[in-house]
Amino acid sequence: MSGDPENPEHPERAAVAAFADDFVADLREWLSIPSIGTDPAHHEDVARSARWLADALRRDGWPDVQVWSGSGALPAVYACLPAADPDAPVVLVYGHHDVQPVDPVEQWHYPPFEGTLVGEELFGRGASDDKGQVAMHLLGVKAHLAALRADHPSVTIKLFVEGEEESGSPNLTRLLDDHVDDLACDLVVFTDTPLYARDAPTICTGQRGLYGAEVVFTGGTADVHSGRAGGSVPNPATAIARLVAALHDDQGRVRLPGFYADVIEPTAAERADYATLPFDQDVWLANSGGAQAEAGEEGWSTLERVWVRPTAEVNGILGGYAGPGLKTIVPSRAAVKLSFRLVPDQRPERIADALREFVDAHTPPGLSAEIIPRGDGTPPYAMPVDHPAVRAVKEALEAAFEQPVRFSRTGGSGPAALLRQRIGVPVVYLGATLPDDRIHAPNERVVVPLLLRGAEAAARLWRLLPERLS
Amino acid sequence: MSGDPENPEHPERAAVAAFADDFVADLREWLSIPSIGTDPAHHEDVARSARWLADALRRDGWPDVQVWSGSGALPAVYACLPAADPDAPVVLVYGHHDVQPVDPVEQWHYPPFEGTLVGEELFGRGASDDKGQVAMHLLGVKAHLAALRADHPSVTIKLFVEGEEESGSPNLTRLLDDHVDDLACDLVVFTDTPLYARDAPTICTGQRGLYGAEVVFTGGTADVHSGRAGGSVPNPATAIARLVAALHDDQGRVRLPGFYADVIEPTAAERADYATLPFDQDVWLANSGGAQAEAGEEGWSTLERVWVRPTAEVNGILGGYAGPGLKTIVPSRAAVKLSFRLVPDQRPERIADALREFVDAHTPPGLSAEIIPRGDGTPPYAMPVDHPAVRAVKEALEAAFEQPVRFSRTGGSGPAALLRQRIGVPVVYLGATLPDDRIHAPNERVVVPLLLRGAEAAARLWRLLPERLS
Repeated sequence: MSGDPENPEHPERAAVAAFADDFVADLREWLSIPSIGTDPAHHEDVARSARWLADALRRDGWPDVQVWSGSGALPAVYACLPAADPDAPVVLVYGHHDVQPVDPVEQWHYPPFEGTLVGEELFGRGASDDKGQVAMHLLGVKAHLAALRADHPSVTIKLFVEGEEESGSPNLTRLLDDHVDDLACDLVVFTDTPLYARDAPTICTGQRGLYGAEVVFTGGTADVHSGRAGGSVPNPATAIARLVAALHDDQGRVRLPGFYADVIEPTAAERADYATLPFDQDVWLANSGGAQAEAGEEGWSTLERVWVRPTAEVNGILGGYAGPGLKTIVPSRAAVKLSFRLVPDQRPERIADALREFVDAHTPPGLSAEIIPRGDGTPPYAMPVDHPAVRAVKEALEAAFEQPVRFSRTGGSGPAALLRQRIGVPVVYLGATLPDDRIHAPNERVVVPLLLRGAEAAARLWRLLPERLS
Repeated sequence: MSGDPENPEHPERAAVAAFADDFVADLREWLSIPSIGTDPAHHEDVARSARWLADALRRDGWPDVQVWSGSGALPAVYACLPAADPDAPVVLVYGHHDVQPVDPVEQWHYPPFEGTLVGEELFGRGASDDKGQVAMHLLGVKAHLAALRADHPSVTIKLFVEGEEESGSPNLTRLLDDHVDDLACDLVVFTDTPLYARDAPTICTGQRGLYGAEVVFTGGTADVHSGRAGGSVPNPATAIARLVAALHDDQGRVRLPGFYADVIEPTAAERADYATLPFDQDVWLANSGGAQAEAGEEGWSTLERVWVRPTAEVNGILGGYAGPGLKTIVPSRAAVKLSFRLVPDQRPERIADALREFVDAHTPPGLSAEIIPRGDGTPPYAMPVDHPAVRAVKEALEAAFEQPVRFSRTGGSGPAALLRQRIGVPVVYLGATLPDDRIHAPNERVVVPLLLRGAEAAARLWRLLPERLS
């Protein structure tokens, strides 16, 4: 941490530094709870994770802490810390405490659920996505109060940390509607996005949406010997492969009917801005699972492909015999897990309709098709870069990181659009993780000094906001 | 069993009837040994199965019984029972005692490794393929000797039962060459093919060959979050799907380069003969894993598609996340298990070359391809229908089944061509199982009265052969 922590111009930085060791110890404890929301075997761990967070908030002195276990959702945590001034703005910090599965677990260099600190890096599932960033906000609030030498923050701060984000937030609409008064606010601060790079901090202004579904083709009622019937009956694995092969054209464009109808293309100015960000192809590939080459839709840069262009990806494909050796069968069933990343103003429900039409057109005679949606999907979201709240976040980040902060987007998905729609206020992004944190993959980590900068930025933001939102 | 078992015109039938109860009890014992040769965890069971067969032969009085555990192969059983006349023909009965895996095990109505007799049906893995048919030959020899009231058969009978057929007989060439003197004979009787139907017994005159390989595409070194990189890097699962989709053209023809170059098309007379066999589409579909419709190469009947036309089938496809729920990744790896059924005179080594060329042409930039062959493959085989040994088998079957026996082929594969090549004598087929025995699938069974008829036919064949082969 550069600068003089006792310098009165940087009281938030000094406070963050004072709390840093406790912050890491607490986060490691939280990371040890395997709150894998997509796996029913871990739902009790999601509940434990919620209780851990609620207890931590109470220890920090938040007066109103609740664990919401209703609404059909896995447990969410809500807390409110009122400003001294009842007319002060109300902000709602959004995050999530559920995490992704950890397979292939044999590729982890450290146990996924211990929280292993190696130098500046803290390894563990959820370290970056999203427990680390939620913990960053707890630290930011403590630093804000310490810098103010007050018991009440400059703005009323509400915290809402859900437990189903990695499942596509299937019950979030009901949860928001059931708690509409608790969640009322003037601004949502969304905390589940990264900086562009360690040396190129950015403020995110948008996220892609998501629609996911599994398509299942069924032929017979049982696998059949390929010597007995091979060549005479439809093969569901071949058919599912043909469906996948038909998903893209030769230019890498998605061939669902009407897929691009609602896409808002970025302006030339936006594209020029993204082009100023440092981009190292080797680093990009290394951080993209060690990919050997780029690929994707023709006519767009790599950053544009993941930030402002929609996609169709196979997340998993499975049919027939997957064990050791050879088993000469025609399988009775094959399935593919597909997900579509969406950009404004695509809508998941329209993509669902288009997928149904596409599957119907690609189901050969003799096979039955089933589409199993994974929730209702997540709409995409983007924020105007000249909004006062965006400018305030940018200023707070620039002060904390001591350098200019540019704009970026992220290719991932989150419920920003849903929060915007149900709560009816703007959503801004404040995150301090990195794209190469290996979220959703083995060896997820977070860079601790960046979380500390992020906590400082949040603390500064709470001080700035009353004036900026007035 | 119809007819008078004490009628001196049917001494083989009477003898088979007398041994029938012991036959079923012994076979059930053998079926209880899970000799899954394709699974290394069951290799000790393959050895147990070989010892069980050797002990059974010794109990039956075969003077020379050997378990061959060398040559790199899983244990095979060899036995010889000499004719009284040292100039009598020598026949070699070929079968196998290894069995297919049993998954999905939850679809079995009876335990796969107990041998459950329900009416005329005996259920269990290997009941039909191929322990039941090997046991049928042991019974046939006993019935032949009993009918002759002799200690020595009319022909010298050698038995060779290998333990790697379900793995594609990868070490059979070496095994045959290492035991060339033991296996010398005038005729091979191949016992691993079915009748056409219970009410339409046939003599098989050919089998398709097989070449199997797994194709693996690898992108990165780890799965990557599809929000992070989706749309910007190659997806191995998409690529493997495109490879599979390219395997066939719109007419259902296989698109490997030169795939049909060596195919000998059946004559018009052969096609007309196959067309006289009773064919019920509903029954065919029910016996083909409950398929909902036929499919396949245009211009050929269903029986032709499986008997005399080559195919490419996906036996298994696997890439990315296959667990519960959604995991939004771009997988680092995807694989497909392919098998090609071949017809005379296609050669597995040529298909291997063609597959390599095809995979090279369908590997997109940024992915690495690996082809893992499953053994050297199995050449196809067919026998002229007017050969004296074929006519002798036909006569023995017609006497045992008391009705005309027509010609058929089978879509499955076996080492008939290899036996023909290494031993240098003709190979004829004698089998008494059914196409709807669900071999390689859950609920494999065999119809016991058919095995008894088959044993009677074998016993009659041994009596006929000295004259027919002279």
